[in-house]
Parts: sequence; C-alpha cells; structure tokens
Amino acid sequence: MDLDRLDKQMDFITRIDALKSVVRQTALVDRSRQENSAEHSWHIAVMALLLSEYSNAENLDLLRVVKMLLVHDLVEIYAGDTFLYDDEKRQAKEEEERRASEKLFGLLPQDQAIELHTLWQEFEEERTPESRFAKALDALQPVLLGYANKGWSWERHSISKDQVLSHKKPVRIGSEQLWEYLQKLLEKAVKEGFLQD
Amino acid sequence: MDLDRLDKQMDFITRIDALKSVVRQTALVDRSRQENSAEHSWHIAVMALLLSEYSNAENLDLLRVVKMLLVHDLVEIYAGDTFLYDDEKRQAKEEEERRASEKLFGLLPQDQAIELHTLWQEFEEERTPESRFAKALDALQPVLLGYANKGWSWERHSISKDQVLSHKKPVRIGSEQLWEYLQKLLEKAVKEGFLQD
Repeated sequence: MDLDRLDKQMDFITRIDALKSVVRQTALVDRSRQENSAEHSWHIAVMALLLSEYSNAENLDLLRVVKMLLVHDLVEIYAGDTFLYDDEKRQAKEEEERRASEKLFGLLPQDQAIELHTLWQEFEEERTPESRFAKALDALQPVLLGYANKGWSWERHSISKDQVLSHKKPVRIGSEQLWEYLQKLLEKAVKEGFLQD
Repeated sequence: MDLDRLDKQMDFITRIDALKSVVRQTALVDRSRQENSAEHSWHIAVMALLLSEYSNAENLDLLRVVKMLLVHDLVEIYAGDTFLYDDEKRQAKEEEERRASEKLFGLLPQDQAIELHTLWQEFEEERTPESRFAKALDALQPVLLGYANKGWSWERHSISKDQVLSHKKPVRIGSEQLWEYLQKLLEKAVKEGFLQD
C-alpha cells in the first residue's frame, strides 16, 4: 500500500468536512435554520437517483452526474457560497473559485486531483448532457425548498417570480419536464401569497 | 408526463429534507456542533469516490455503492439515529427501522420504492461486495472525524480503543487496507492522549 497516497486522500477527506459549515441562502423545510452546502450536495445527489428519467438527454451516465453533484460545491470551502441573485458578486467569484479548485483538489494524488478538477469544470461549463442535468437539479432544489418553507428566502430578499424564472434557466436546459414543474410550483407560490408576481 | 408519478417523487424529495435534522453522536472536525445524517451521507459518498481502490473485492459497482450510501440513513427520519455503542438500543431498533423503511419508501412510485428498499436491505445485510465496502466507509468516517476533532465523542462517552475496535469490524470486512489505517489512527489517538487504551 502506498502510504503517501492514502495519507493524501485521508487529509483531503478530513478537510472537506468544512463544507458542512458553508451556509446557503436557503432554509430547511421546517425553517429551523439555513441549509449548508454538504447537505445540499447530498440532497441533489438523491434527486439525481430519482429524477434521471426527466433529463432532456437520453442514456445519461448517472454515476458521472452523481459524482459531479457530490463535488461541485467543494470549491466553496475556500471561496464561500455566492447568493444566486447577487449577479455582481457572482462574476467576481469565478476567478476565486478557479484558484480554490486548484488549491483544494491539489491536495489529492495527481490522478484524483485531475479527475475531480475535470468533474468540477465539466459542471461549470454545462456542455455535456450529464453536467446539464446536474445543473438543472442544483437549480431546482432551492425552489423545492422555497415552496415547502413558504418562501423563507424569497420574502427575506424580496425576490419576485420573474427573478426566480430568469435565474433558473439551467432547469430548462437540463429538463423540459422539470422546468414545467418549476413554473407550476412558482405559480402556486404566488397564489398562496409567499412569492411576488 | 405522468403527473402523479412526478408529484410522488417531489413529495418524497421534500420529506427527506428531515434527514438534515437527525443529529449524530459525532462532532464536526472544528467541534463547532454535532454532525447530522445528511452531511454524513454526503461525506461517505465522496469517500466512496476516492477510496474504492482499497475495497477487498475487485470490480465494485461504484454507482451501487454510492446509491446505498446516499439512502442508507433515510430510515432515521422516522426511527432516529442510534448510537453505535448503545448495544441494547440497537437491537430493539431493527424492527423499528424496518417499519420506517416501508413507510418512507412507500411514498415513492412502486418501482423506485422497491429499488430504494432493496438498496437499504442490501446495505443492512452486508452480503454483497458493494454493501460490505459501503459499510466499511460508514464505520470508518466517524473514526476519521474522531481523530481530527481530538476525541470529542470518545471522551464524552468514555469510550476506549478496544471498544472502538470491537465495533468497527465492518471496516475490516470491507477493506483490510482501511482497517490497517484505522488501527494506526487509534494508536495515534491513544498516544496523543484523547483515547483511553
């Protein structure tokens, strides 16, 4: 056994514990607290197992989708989470996330550093069927929570239905069926009074 | 699109948000708080992506391992988490978890209810190479955190090195190499003074 290799892997695994402390602008369904990025990553990975039938592309490599979802937020350990509706900050963040990716994945043995960096890049570039579906789930999940917790984040940040729709295009790119579902959910949220029209 | 099917899936996805509120007897590396079962599931799924080379069995179906790890704790939403070292309570829990599994997975469309129930059972029975490796990771992760947070849980519950070893046999069944690593880690913990010999 190459001890150096295993030590590097275990060091990485211990460090990514920090993702459990990266707080998102989404609350849990019961509104008890804000969600963190590790829980969010788990949630969308389970969604991938259940919803892959709705992908716009056929014959998805499901393992690749799940891998991407499990690692896509790791760069936040160094770069932090950026609120989707904060457009200015999101642009400045790109360079920071690229540096964070090199620093974090560089802790791993080279073959795995390359694998995870490649997965993260594929997710960000949104060009493959797998990354498009993964992005769709990543974008859809906070809307599901937002509806279930009666607009905790939408009310707090005065976000309207049109703003949500304009920021959720990745859902449509990955899945027309889930996009249709999302639109109906937002209409219900407006009708029920916790999302501005 | 079968609306009833998608509604069931989304209802399930919304309900499993509750796993984020199931608290475990493990603290985060920085000791800031206890870990919850959703974060734990994410953490061991990432471990599966990085450590599968150490499985005792060759040619693992990695997607199956990851699926098992993502859903194995879901029954805790109804049954709660049971502390590994509470042997009496753990036996009584088995029947409760079986009922919880039927109730929870029964929310899904039938094909997916069967798939998730089968995955959960396979994990519990520990007979396939995939479930053995999954169990090994599930058992190893709290030891990694325990070492990194300097024995938060071991000190709190007065747990000795022998007690840890006797409860961590699944690691050996899934991976001799990770078992060797675990033993060395516990020896270091004893030497550094936060685990009783």
